[in-house]
Amino acid sequence: MIVIGGPASNNLGELIAKALNAEYVRIVHKLFPDGESYVRYPISISGEDVVIVQSTYYPQDKHLMELFLMVEAAKDLGAKRVVSVVPYLAYTRQDKRFLEGEPISIKTVLRLLWHCGSDALITVEIHKEDSLKFFPGKAVNIHAMKPLANYFKSKVMESEGIEPSDVVVLAPDKGALNRAIEFSSIVGCEHDYLEKFRDRITGEVKVKPKSLNVRDKIVVIVDDIISTGGTVALASNNVREQGARKVYAICAHALLVGNALNKLKKAGVSSIIALNTLPTPEEVEVVDASNDIAQALTTLV
Amino acid sequence: MIVIGGPASNNLGELIAKALNAEYVRIVHKLFPDGESYVRYPISISGEDVVIVQSTYYPQDKHLMELFLMVEAAKDLGAKRVVSVVPYLAYTRQDKRFLEGEPISIKTVLRLLWHCGSDALITVEIHKEDSLKFFPGKAVNIHAMKPLANYFKSKVMESEGIEPSDVVVLAPDKGALNRAIEFSSIVGCEHDYLEKFRDRITGEVKVKPKSLNVRDKIVVIVDDIISTGGTVALASNNVREQGARKVYAICAHALLVGNALNKLKKAGVSSIIALNTLPTPEEVEVVDASNDIAQALTTLV
Repeated sequence: MIVIGGPASNNLGELIAKALNAEYVRIVHKLFPDGESYVRYPISISGEDVVIVQSTYYPQDKHLMELFLMVEAAKDLGAKRVVSVVPYLAYTRQDKRFLEGEPISIKTVLRLLWHCGSDALITVEIHKEDSLKFFPGKAVNIHAMKPLANYFKSKVMESEGIEPSDVVVLAPDKGALNRAIEFSSIVGCEHDYLEKFRDRITGEVKVKPKSLNVRDKIVVIVDDIISTGGTVALASNNVREQGARKVYAICAHALLVGNALNKLKKAGVSSIIALNTLPTPEEVEVVDASNDIAQALTTLV
Repeated sequence: MIVIGGPASNNLGELIAKALNAEYVRIVHKLFPDGESYVRYPISISGEDVVIVQSTYYPQDKHLMELFLMVEAAKDLGAKRVVSVVPYLAYTRQDKRFLEGEPISIKTVLRLLWHCGSDALITVEIHKEDSLKFFPGKAVNIHAMKPLANYFKSKVMESEGIEPSDVVVLAPDKGALNRAIEFSSIVGCEHDYLEKFRDRITGEVKVKPKSLNVRDKIVVIVDDIISTGGTVALASNNVREQGARKVYAICAHALLVGNALNKLKKAGVSSIIALNTLPTPEEVEVVDASNDIAQALTTLV
């Protein structure tokens, strides 16, 4: 097995290869003067099982095209099997037609990846696991809450002397409750999800936990993606008003678009913890996902 | 038949629809805050022959993904047939493995377009016509030299009193000679191609026409793409040293990357003439390709 680090692997290719004790090769990559992408395998991959690691964060379309080029070239060059490891998968939130006339973008992305020659796919904490049905080959979704909760338990709670009974894990909405359940079961604490309500005095839309009281609690807001930070910032502001002692924002993929980081700080989020599925600013505490990916690979290749 | 103007149609969608007297609809388009593309058909296209016009100039990968999303959505939404009109097709110059380990990028692009559901493809002056073999459906390449030569003859030569005997059409190399032949046969003038030689005094690599003398001639350099402008600038500088009176640079697709426009001016190119297959700076004289595309469509749909 050869692990190939794509131009947007965020160093995960190398870490995965190390975890598997496999050969690691970084793809040769450049941009032509007009902006077209160029990739080249610097070694022979004929007859090999090839694992291509390429995340598809911004600019998503460029990183997707690089992935398509790498996969098809691998097959053309005689690779036996190609497994695409796409730690952050773009377009997962357009997973149905919200309005008539829209594409189901994640379907297009996954079908194209398969048509290029990707026999299998590994991704991390996909927005909706059900979307993997659009990939005709074998597809594995790695759950992020396990490594994130383990990190929070061993690194944050232990060093700061936080007891499980001090912690409340909140999902931003009912649809994301499973993540809160998964996270809290590892930490051994309570969980809930946030519900919208309208403040009777100001008329503002606010959120509060469905059942639990957050007064004097350490609140952990868990999500798959933090993008503009709007949802988490609102949640943090509100639970702090409701008496929460401290707020952690924990997610698989910290996109942090635009001024998201400042927005979160201003809303009283004291720490952001995320996986290394994409590059993050230094303010984000990073949890390595390579071991979980490597383990999934051993079941596939 | 409905003609859909994609986000990168450069207004050609509307012009093609007008030429065909067909319904024209501009796709709804936006960017999500994280940079993902969004498209939506604002009308029902079920049961229709749908012509999607989308050029794939810079940023090429974004424009390609938009095209893939539009094509697959059209098929999903019940379009009878989908014809992709891609006036400028990206990645055509990576049409073979120049080095071992490279992708054949244009193969990947054309196969993906077909897998999305594009039944047929129309493009303009593809770098090598042979590349169309990678598209499994019906594919038409519109020759650009005809409209460009007709424009040059009727608009430039007539208004400036240029006789065919004053003009020499030059291809930048032997491989592109066919374009010079096509152009010159319409204008009724001589043609040749440029060959490299090393200046015996300075040691510089220069070019000169294989057989013809350009002294006091109006030189027209024809090519499919002007990208960085390096090739044309060298040619212009050299034929002017060799006595050419005036130099026109005429191409299908004026990418004009970076400071190409200044480079060409400094090299003594007095006019750049190109098709409207992509947006160009106002210094470029633009020839409309919509009639030729509309004509090709009538043979397809």
